[in-house]
Amino acid sequence: MNEHDLHEIERYYQSLSTLIRLHGAEHMGRQYVVVRLARMEVTGPLDYSDLQRILGRVPDLRSWWDSWSREARDAEALARRLAGKGDPISAGDLFHRASACYHWGAYLARFDSDERAEGKSHRVRCYREAVDMWSERIEPFVVPYRDTQLPGYLHLARGDEPAPCVIMVDGADSVKEEYHNWARQFVRRGMSVLTLDGPGQGEMLGRLPMRPEAWEEPMGAAVDALAESGRVDADRIGIWGSSMGGFLVLRAAAFEPRLRAAVSSGGFYDFRDFRFWAVTTQLNVMEDLGVDSLSEARDYIEERCSLEGVVDRISVPYLVIHGARDELVSIPEAKQMAAGPTGEFVNFEDGLHTGTNHNATLVPLMCDWMARKLADA
Amino acid sequence: MNEHDLHEIERYYQSLSTLIRLHGAEHMGRQYVVVRLARMEVTGPLDYSDLQRILGRVPDLRSWWDSWSREARDAEALARRLAGKGDPISAGDLFHRASACYHWGAYLARFDSDERAEGKSHRVRCYREAVDMWSERIEPFVVPYRDTQLPGYLHLARGDEPAPCVIMVDGADSVKEEYHNWARQFVRRGMSVLTLDGPGQGEMLGRLPMRPEAWEEPMGAAVDALAESGRVDADRIGIWGSSMGGFLVLRAAAFEPRLRAAVSSGGFYDFRDFRFWAVTTQLNVMEDLGVDSLSEARDYIEERCSLEGVVDRISVPYLVIHGARDELVSIPEAKQMAAGPTGEFVNFEDGLHTGTNHNATLVPLMCDWMARKLADA
Repeated sequence: MNEHDLHEIERYYQSLSTLIRLHGAEHMGRQYVVVRLARMEVTGPLDYSDLQRILGRVPDLRSWWDSWSREARDAEALARRLAGKGDPISAGDLFHRASACYHWGAYLARFDSDERAEGKSHRVRCYREAVDMWSERIEPFVVPYRDTQLPGYLHLARGDEPAPCVIMVDGADSVKEEYHNWARQFVRRGMSVLTLDGPGQGEMLGRLPMRPEAWEEPMGAAVDALAESGRVDADRIGIWGSSMGGFLVLRAAAFEPRLRAAVSSGGFYDFRDFRFWAVTTQLNVMEDLGVDSLSEARDYIEERCSLEGVVDRISVPYLVIHGARDELVSIPEAKQMAAGPTGEFVNFEDGLHTGTNHNATLVPLMCDWMARKLADA
Repeated sequence: MNEHDLHEIERYYQSLSTLIRLHGAEHMGRQYVVVRLARMEVTGPLDYSDLQRILGRVPDLRSWWDSWSREARDAEALARRLAGKGDPISAGDLFHRASACYHWGAYLARFDSDERAEGKSHRVRCYREAVDMWSERIEPFVVPYRDTQLPGYLHLARGDEPAPCVIMVDGADSVKEEYHNWARQFVRRGMSVLTLDGPGQGEMLGRLPMRPEAWEEPMGAAVDALAESGRVDADRIGIWGSSMGGFLVLRAAAFEPRLRAAVSSGGFYDFRDFRFWAVTTQLNVMEDLGVDSLSEARDYIEERCSLEGVVDRISVPYLVIHGARDELVSIPEAKQMAAGPTGEFVNFEDGLHTGTNHNATLVPLMCDWMARKLADA
């Protein structure tokens, strides 16, 4: 990281803290400014009252981690008490809650802080404890890739027959633990799900860099591992991704023919507005890519991350979901994603980035579409 | 209804509309003023983004029904499209959503309006359609009582063995359709659940008046019906109720010995502050009781609705859950409920009425407690 980056980051933190002082973190979350209340609520075990309470204790950016980690510790302590009493379902729910709170605590903790690292580590650990407690059929599942392993969870559909399977791909700052609720929505509809931290994502951050321009490689490894496991119907594997994941899945679908359908929600064609994103999110991408400065990250994205010539190669059905109020990607950019011969495009007029503010209609759209395409595959 | 009542009601509607004009319905919901955002979110299929959108279209009280019913109609139309396409799980979710929106639309529609009646009727119909769509084991279930039937739904626990069963009792303005989410939390923990409109509640409004001072009678009929059905373990039936239901369940537990455990959340000992409640809620109670004026309702409550001499008679374990920030019942009143020899008392320091703002800790408390007591019964 160079001096210029450090200066830009400090300036961003200061302006963010000023916004929080002026408007309160809760109001910012309601208005979807960096703090995205809809995302926090829809993807994990937090409801509005929780967010109101947690964000009400955040008068400035410095308080962010303290408030979230306090909620996380309380949830984890209660989870342990419940586990000790023999109430595993409740304990699982509370470990899940702790994981989510650690995740969001790390989300706006300073990028170079111990707290951020701590939050990430506890997020992983607590979700694993939740899975061990619950009675749902969710199993840790690793994908051998190069000389390492990509960690994930296999959510198994009901019944003994191997079911179609959806690989869920993280975004730039989302993680396999975050997608629990949506994974369960696929499972309700008869599909199994693999949530996974790919290179540069979640647990793989700092261990293997993300190569967006070759995302078919780790996804091919995931298909191999799923097929070898015998736990899913390997002829009916689809892929789903949100935000940066919405870019990655289209890249993978173009070059990994064993992926039979793809859903891209809130994705990007060429990240043309990348340098205007929140600096914290650009920092996440910098880390994902394993490069050393914001300018390198911007160059990398500009030079290597485009779906030009890619979407035309996709031969399986794919669905692009966009929200017209997305602050990171415009309608023209989103439409280019869907311009391949097998692409479909759905625009939510009132939709924000990744459509989390219309979850009740988003879920049927993406889950039923996937179920149908995998059934037809 | 006499002239004095009509005047009081108009005055209340005017002051409510002024509050909405000044603060917006969403802000009132956040602050838990008549509009209770936490309750709307926790009990049914509505998240904060939904409420933000729906309440954002409510600049005054007159717009209340229009905004909710519009959301309801959209959800119902989508549910029908999804059902037609062969996506029953999504269709069920959207019918459930329509039911909830009709419910909340009726909640603050004028008490004498066609819209209010319409909302109530559509709420019942749409929830029934949801149940028909879902794959969960939920069945319509009626309880013969006097010369009529109390309508309900039996949520069956997993497995073939008859499981312990929880009867869920509505409050003054809540209904069997509203408690779906909590019913499923009991089911996750191995219990079956009967949601039920008792006399004066939900569908029974106007058909049979509520007799709070003899609530053991309809509950005895429910136990009879459950036992005769052979679908549940009739030696392990518990009862749960929230708000006015929290009063009713203690009355029932005192005089119906086949109820083996009771949870009372946000209940009342003697409704000592009843006349200070929102007039709309007092109106609901007036209707529940089948009396003709607010003053009759107040007299009825004052003269006949007390647990004095009642809680001492309860011989099974019972749990009283209170929120210290409850605006309808004070801590001293709540503690009196728990003063019987088998009573336990849990106070949520930050809890609002019925604890919906702490759902993540409320659910483990009430569900695990019930599971344990019914297992020991």
